[in-house]
Amino acid sequence: MAAEKDLDYIVAMLADDVLGSKRERYEHPLPTSYRKAFQAIVSDPNNELVVAYDGKDNVIGVQQITFTPYLTHQGGWRATIEGVRTASSVREEGIGSELIKWGIKRAKDRGCHVVQLTTDKKRPDALRFYERLGFKATHEGLKLKLY
Amino acid sequence: MAAEKDLDYIVAMLADDVLGSKRERYEHPLPTSYRKAFQAIVSDPNNELVVAYDGKDNVIGVQQITFTPYLTHQGGWRATIEGVRTASSVREEGIGSELIKWGIKRAKDRGCHVVQLTTDKKRPDALRFYERLGFKATHEGLKLKLY
Repeated sequence: MAAEKDLDYIVAMLADDVLGSKRERYEHPLPTSYRKAFQAIVSDPNNELVVAYDGKDNVIGVQQITFTPYLTHQGGWRATIEGVRTASSVREEGIGSELIKWGIKRAKDRGCHVVQLTTDKKRPDALRFYERLGFKATHEGLKLKLY
Repeated sequence: MAAEKDLDYIVAMLADDVLGSKRERYEHPLPTSYRKAFQAIVSDPNNELVVAYDGKDNVIGVQQITFTPYLTHQGGWRATIEGVRTASSVREEGIGSELIKWGIKRAKDRGCHVVQLTTDKKRPDALRFYERLGFKATHEGLKLKLY
């Protein structure tokens, strides 16, 4: 699980991305909105911020997993994976795949009946990546921006 | 917000559906898994089970809204809508539309920057319904079933 000292690395990774570069603000000091969100995530028992470290304690991968109880599927819990990123220095080394596999195992351990995620249609490589891991694109993912 | 007395009506609605009929168990007494999930939902400040009533205190619509803090989008909160159903007796009367509009307002009030949902590709009418309400199908929705 991520520690507060990792936040700087994580935001740097989120910003170092085709889509992320347009919407994140990686600067020093980090905007307080990131610190507030970090606290909200790590203090919620149904949210986990998972990081992968290299041998030198640097963050090289991140994902957020949200566990949600639903009435559907006879009151089944679901795990939702979001915000998956790996450091550009280790891309193609299988870190992303290891992260998702870890998330799937974690979802099983917490009794979830499904792991779900959405991926932007502008990322065809990401879609193929998740399909190789066994995910099926059975749903449309819709968004309504509020601001 | 839903009360425990509404649970029977809600599960009846979830089961009275092309896809739901295959995966729900509407029987008396209700399987305890539904009651456990109901308690988990209503006791979580980041989950809301929203119901619409007719004039006689019967439930005619339901949706679940989950509020989640993320690091992405500069630490923005999102609202995820799931499990939207209306009673077959009132279908085509705009109850579903009113529910979603209520959810969008609620998401704004809670400071979310986006409302998101996924809809099964086997429900083309649902996709058009959400698009009419302003949602854009920019993402693929992927699922990995665990059991």
